[in-house]
Amino acid sequence: MRYFVLGAGSWGCTIAQMLKDNGHDVLLWAHSEEHAKLLNTRKKMPHLPDVNLDVPVTSDISVGKNFDVLIIAVPVQFVRSVLEKIDYDVSIVLNLSKGIEISTGKRVSEIVHETLGCNYAVLSGPSHAEEVALKLPTAVVVVGEMASEFQREFSNDYFRVYVHDDVVGVELAGALKNVIAIAAGIVDGLGGWDNAKAALITRGLYEIARFSMEFGANPLTFMGLAGIGDLIVTCGSKHSRNRRYGEMVAKGYDPVHLLAASKEIVEGAFTCKAVVENYGNKYDLPIIKEVYEVIYNRKSPIDSIKSLMSRSLKLEMEEVRRWLEKSLKSL
Amino acid sequence: MRYFVLGAGSWGCTIAQMLKDNGHDVLLWAHSEEHAKLLNTRKKMPHLPDVNLDVPVTSDISVGKNFDVLIIAVPVQFVRSVLEKIDYDVSIVLNLSKGIEISTGKRVSEIVHETLGCNYAVLSGPSHAEEVALKLPTAVVVVGEMASEFQREFSNDYFRVYVHDDVVGVELAGALKNVIAIAAGIVDGLGGWDNAKAALITRGLYEIARFSMEFGANPLTFMGLAGIGDLIVTCGSKHSRNRRYGEMVAKGYDPVHLLAASKEIVEGAFTCKAVVENYGNKYDLPIIKEVYEVIYNRKSPIDSIKSLMSRSLKLEMEEVRRWLEKSLKSL
Repeated sequence: MRYFVLGAGSWGCTIAQMLKDNGHDVLLWAHSEEHAKLLNTRKKMPHLPDVNLDVPVTSDISVGKNFDVLIIAVPVQFVRSVLEKIDYDVSIVLNLSKGIEISTGKRVSEIVHETLGCNYAVLSGPSHAEEVALKLPTAVVVVGEMASEFQREFSNDYFRVYVHDDVVGVELAGALKNVIAIAAGIVDGLGGWDNAKAALITRGLYEIARFSMEFGANPLTFMGLAGIGDLIVTCGSKHSRNRRYGEMVAKGYDPVHLLAASKEIVEGAFTCKAVVENYGNKYDLPIIKEVYEVIYNRKSPIDSIKSLMSRSLKLEMEEVRRWLEKSLKSL
Repeated sequence: MRYFVLGAGSWGCTIAQMLKDNGHDVLLWAHSEEHAKLLNTRKKMPHLPDVNLDVPVTSDISVGKNFDVLIIAVPVQFVRSVLEKIDYDVSIVLNLSKGIEISTGKRVSEIVHETLGCNYAVLSGPSHAEEVALKLPTAVVVVGEMASEFQREFSNDYFRVYVHDDVVGVELAGALKNVIAIAAGIVDGLGGWDNAKAALITRGLYEIARFSMEFGANPLTFMGLAGIGDLIVTCGSKHSRNRRYGEMVAKGYDPVHLLAASKEIVEGAFTCKAVVENYGNKYDLPIIKEVYEVIYNRKSPIDSIKSLMSRSLKLEMEEVRRWLEKSLKSL
């Protein structure tokens, strides 16, 4: 199939190059003529100056009409405005972006439905672009329309694709794990307490699984690659920008200025805002709300961790487990 | 209550000191007079020369008869021979050791049942001794007889204890995660591939949950602190001796000589042997069997990772998930 990749950041470029290497016809779209020109001249991956980028880049979105599949790899807050520029029929979108729209609280599948109204699939899992670009072993899931075709076209000897069946769970796991990663980064920045971080990630997994079930997700999705797999890599990896952002905030950097200063998009900070401002009154989200307080209300990270610790005293791990058990039986 | 702690290694000393600080009467038992003398003279934690050890240490196991609770903190392969030295009645054992006996394939609860025949509880979770000794925030679970009493007596402002209800699941999760940690360490040693490591840990979680269900464990235990929580800390922490052992093996150290040379017990290597030699013919254990091949048959770590990667191609993530879903519904 022929792929038009919207977004020429690390992940967009990496997937475009991999599809090219897999033998497919690929064109990248960058948001500005300048950025397209730079990539076409340098022919190197963003942030990986030693890895070649052998895919042409355009800034003209209208040429996408000649392609079979539209891949979304732009930051979630820009997805709607980019899709609104498209005035031709699109048959299918494959989404790679992980987040929730702040202004509406919607997932990318909902934005695609409202703008293009076409078929939809999403690819997610523990997949730092830096490692995929270097052809290091990676396993991900794909779910939605034509998932089996995408599985076939994307798979190669270092990139394993599993077909999933839970669009909502995969989308929300991918979006929400970035917020938990900021919290994990805060623990790292405060002193690298491994016991506390592991407890926080475990509680975080429950929190995002429970929240996502309200939107129809299967909680078991959170036990797989798109859930705990992606959560582990995002909370632990040196490559994770969300974890690193949390670490810098804990070390005293101003959270809002740091967001503005970051060259890369820290999706977790926006996803956190989207969740708390759209759903915060309705759902119990202790970790996500503490991250919100730290970023947007400048609560001290150490006070925030203390709040979480004293709160977890009251919460019974068992209660959550029993609730999950009951919910699973009624699936 | 009065506690007699069998085993004066890092974890035994740390828990003994914490119980003392919590206001309880505690005595430590060391396996040799020499070791007891050393600790009584130095009055410092093993491996933590800056942290005081303010608990007396004996090498006379008979004095344990004056205590209410016997705590087990000796390496699992020595538990049976140590318990066989006890010729007085014991009312209850609280076990802290994580592993499976090589000669029999049995869990510590079974060894206690066969030797002392007394009540039993076990405490587990993401709890590196080095951090608990420094009073850093930690959350664990306790399960079995008198679990609520132990919860009350162990809890303080940095050590959170949750009561669980699945003895078999908590014991097996604690034992088996050490084997997965060796596999994760191997990936670290081969090059620190974060994507591959996250995929491996995710598959490892399934593997140990599925195996444990055969012995009556609840798979949901593996989603909690004793499961994924402990797995995260053991696979990711700088303190984890099992992870570090895998890393050294991947870097070319001879696995058997390294075991012999290690001052600390690498429980995962013994648990791996116990599982494969007692249950390997009966159950599907791809990761645990590869770790066994690397340690005991000197298979090259890179070949081992390749075997796992090519195997995961055949395995359908979805199949495992559906199987788990079905099993949970029938609980």
